[in-house]
Amino acid sequence: MFSREYIMTPGPTPIPERIIKAITSKEALLPAYSKIYGEDLELVKKLVDADGKAIIIGGGATVGLEATLASLIDFKDKVLVLSAGFFGDALYKMVKYYSNNVYVLRAEAGKTVSVSEIKKFLNEHPDTKFVALTHCETTTGALFNLEEISEVVREISDAKIIVDCVSTVGAVPISLRKGHADAVIFGVQKVLNMPPGLAVIVLGNNALEVLETRQCEGYYLNLKMWLNFWEERGYLPSTPPVNLLHGLKEAINIIFEEGLENVFKRHKKVSEIIRAYLKELGLRLVIENDNIASPTITAFYLPKGVSDKLFIEHLWSKFKVLLAKTYGDLEGKAIRIGHMGSSATMDYVYITLIAITLTLKNLNLVPSLRHIPVEYFTF
Amino acid sequence: MFSREYIMTPGPTPIPERIIKAITSKEALLPAYSKIYGEDLELVKKLVDADGKAIIIGGGATVGLEATLASLIDFKDKVLVLSAGFFGDALYKMVKYYSNNVYVLRAEAGKTVSVSEIKKFLNEHPDTKFVALTHCETTTGALFNLEEISEVVREISDAKIIVDCVSTVGAVPISLRKGHADAVIFGVQKVLNMPPGLAVIVLGNNALEVLETRQCEGYYLNLKMWLNFWEERGYLPSTPPVNLLHGLKEAINIIFEEGLENVFKRHKKVSEIIRAYLKELGLRLVIENDNIASPTITAFYLPKGVSDKLFIEHLWSKFKVLLAKTYGDLEGKAIRIGHMGSSATMDYVYITLIAITLTLKNLNLVPSLRHIPVEYFTF
Repeated sequence: MFSREYIMTPGPTPIPERIIKAITSKEALLPAYSKIYGEDLELVKKLVDADGKAIIIGGGATVGLEATLASLIDFKDKVLVLSAGFFGDALYKMVKYYSNNVYVLRAEAGKTVSVSEIKKFLNEHPDTKFVALTHCETTTGALFNLEEISEVVREISDAKIIVDCVSTVGAVPISLRKGHADAVIFGVQKVLNMPPGLAVIVLGNNALEVLETRQCEGYYLNLKMWLNFWEERGYLPSTPPVNLLHGLKEAINIIFEEGLENVFKRHKKVSEIIRAYLKELGLRLVIENDNIASPTITAFYLPKGVSDKLFIEHLWSKFKVLLAKTYGDLEGKAIRIGHMGSSATMDYVYITLIAITLTLKNLNLVPSLRHIPVEYFTF
Repeated sequence: MFSREYIMTPGPTPIPERIIKAITSKEALLPAYSKIYGEDLELVKKLVDADGKAIIIGGGATVGLEATLASLIDFKDKVLVLSAGFFGDALYKMVKYYSNNVYVLRAEAGKTVSVSEIKKFLNEHPDTKFVALTHCETTTGALFNLEEISEVVREISDAKIIVDCVSTVGAVPISLRKGHADAVIFGVQKVLNMPPGLAVIVLGNNALEVLETRQCEGYYLNLKMWLNFWEERGYLPSTPPVNLLHGLKEAINIIFEEGLENVFKRHKKVSEIIRAYLKELGLRLVIENDNIASPTITAFYLPKGVSDKLFIEHLWSKFKVLLAKTYGDLEGKAIRIGHMGSSATMDYVYITLIAITLTLKNLNLVPSLRHIPVEYFTF
C-alpha cells in the first residue's frame, strides 16, 4: 500500500498546502473581495497573454462557458462548433440554446477536426460569426491546435473564436494577444490545483467589441452586467467565493514562481513519458498522432476482457491511484489518466505507471509481462 | 484594540474552525462528490422542513434564484413580486427577464407589503401564477411574514410562492410542508457560516409539478437538467465545489447539534437585545414595527452630520468591528448590523454594542452620553 492517494483524474487535482492555507487564511475568510478580485483579474489575463478584460464568476467552469455564449451570441448569428467528442458535442448543444444557426464539424474519437475541413466550411459560409471549440477534448485527450485554426479563421472570415480551455490553461501556451482566441473560459480545479468553484472568462478586444453591440438579457449569465458592476461600482452582482479568490492568486503565483514556460515544458514531458510507457506495455493509445495529444490527459484502450470499472477499482483499492472512466464513444472501452498541475509531477507519474503495470499483471491482462521497463524512470 | 475582528456584516459570516477543517479535510479535497451531495440534499430539505427535492449549484445564491425563475416561469405567466426595497426591486428586475407579465407591490423603506394589499391584488388578478419575494429585505432588515402571506395566497389563488431566503434559512422558521413557500432559495455564507460559493434550491411538490410541465431551456440555470443528471446518472452537469459540499454537511450538523429551535431562539434574542440597546442610545431603527424586524439584520439611522463611511471606518479601525453600509433608498442614511450564525452570539453582540457606543462618543454624536447602559449586558 502506498502512503497516500494519487489522484490522477482529469481534475479536481490535488491541492497544494499553500493553496489550502490561502483559502483558509484570515484575510480569505473576511467578506471584502474588491482588492483580491482586481489582482486576480490581472493574473488570469497574464496566464493567457491577454489585453482585454477578465471576469471571474462563482460556479463551475460551465457557467463561465454558458455566460460567454449567452452574452456574445445573437440568436441569428451563424456559429461553427468544432467537436472532437463528448464535450465538443455538449458545447454544440449549449450553443444551440443561444443561436438558431449552428453548424458542427465532428471528428471521430481520437482525432480532431482538420484545418482543411474548417477552411472548406468557412469558404462556404463566409458569414460565420463565431467558431467555438473545446481546446482539449477531455474524454479522449485530443488537443486542437489553436495556432493553426486561428490562422485559417482569421484568413477567411471575421469570425470570433471562443475556446473552452478548461483543462489546458497553464499547461498549453495560449495567447489572446497572438490571436489564438477572442474569448477563453476555464475553471480553476485543473492545472491551477484549486478546489472547484470559480469560472474564469477572458475576453480579448475583438470579443469586447462584440459585447458592446449586444443587448444582454438575464442576470447571472450576463457578462455585460458583471463588467459594468465591477467597473462602475467596484463590486460584483453576486457574492463571489471570497476565499477561492485568495486561493486563485496563490495558485497563479505558484505557477509564475516556477515559470510559465517551465510549467508548459513539465506537462509536455510528463505526457510524452506516459504515452511512451503505455505503448511499451502494449496498450493502445486513443490519440495515435502525437501532434494532437494533450499534455494534460492521456486515454488508453483497455485490454479485451476487462471492464473500466474493475480496472479502476483495482488501481484504487490496491494502489490508491485514481484514474477516470470516460464518456461518449469511448465509454467502457478506454480509461483516462489526468496529469495536470500538481499531478503532472514525476512522483505521481512513476507511481501511476507502476500501478498500471502491476494491475495489468494482477488481472492477468498482459500475461507475457515480465519486468517493469525501468528505462522510463530515469527522467 | 480588541484581540480579533468582529465581522458583523450581513454575511459572509465568521467561519467556525470545524467548517474550515471540513472544507480542507482529505476527503473534501478528493474529486468524488456523489455521496456527500446526496447527504447534503437531505440536510437542506430538513432545514426548511420540506418534502420535494433539493438542488445545490456552484455559485452565488443569485444563481440559484435565477435558475428557479428561469426553470419555473413561462414567459406568459403572471407574476407578482413583493418588494420592500433594493433587493426586492432587484428580484422584480430579474423576474422580468423570464416573464412578460410581472407586477410589483412595493413597500416604503422600513416596511413590508401589507397582507391586505396582497389580497386586493390577487382578487383583481386571480390568474396570478407566481408570487415571488425576498424573505428578508437585507438593506433594511424588514422580514416578510410568510405564514400570513402564504395563507392569503392559498386562500385566493393557485399561485406558487417563490421565496429568496438567503439571509433567513436557519434563523427564521420556514416550512415548505406547512405551505409557507413552494420554492426557497438560499446561500450558505449567512446563517450557515460557510464561505460563499453554493446556491441551494428546495422545491416543494407544487413547484415540482410546475417544473414537470415546463420545457426548460439553457444549461446552468436549467433545474430540470440538474435534477435529471443527478437522478439518472448520479452526478452533476458541472463540477460542484466539492470541498464546500463537505463543509455544508458540517455546517448543518452544527446547527442540528444546537437544535434548530434553539438556533431560532438565539437569533430572536440577539435581535431583541440589539434593537432595545440602540433605542436606549437614542438611535432610530429603520424597522419601527418589531413584528417585521428580521432576527438576522438590524439597520439604524445614523445621527445627522456623520457619513456612513466615516462611522464604519471608525468602528473598524478602532474596534475591529465591521458593520455594513446599505443600498437603495437608505444609502448613506443608515447602516446595518448583521447578526446571524456565528455572529448571533453574545460576545459578538456585546462587543458590537460597546463599539457603537464608544464610536458615538468619540465622534461627538451623542454629547449627552455618560454611561454604557450595562443592564443590557446581563443576558
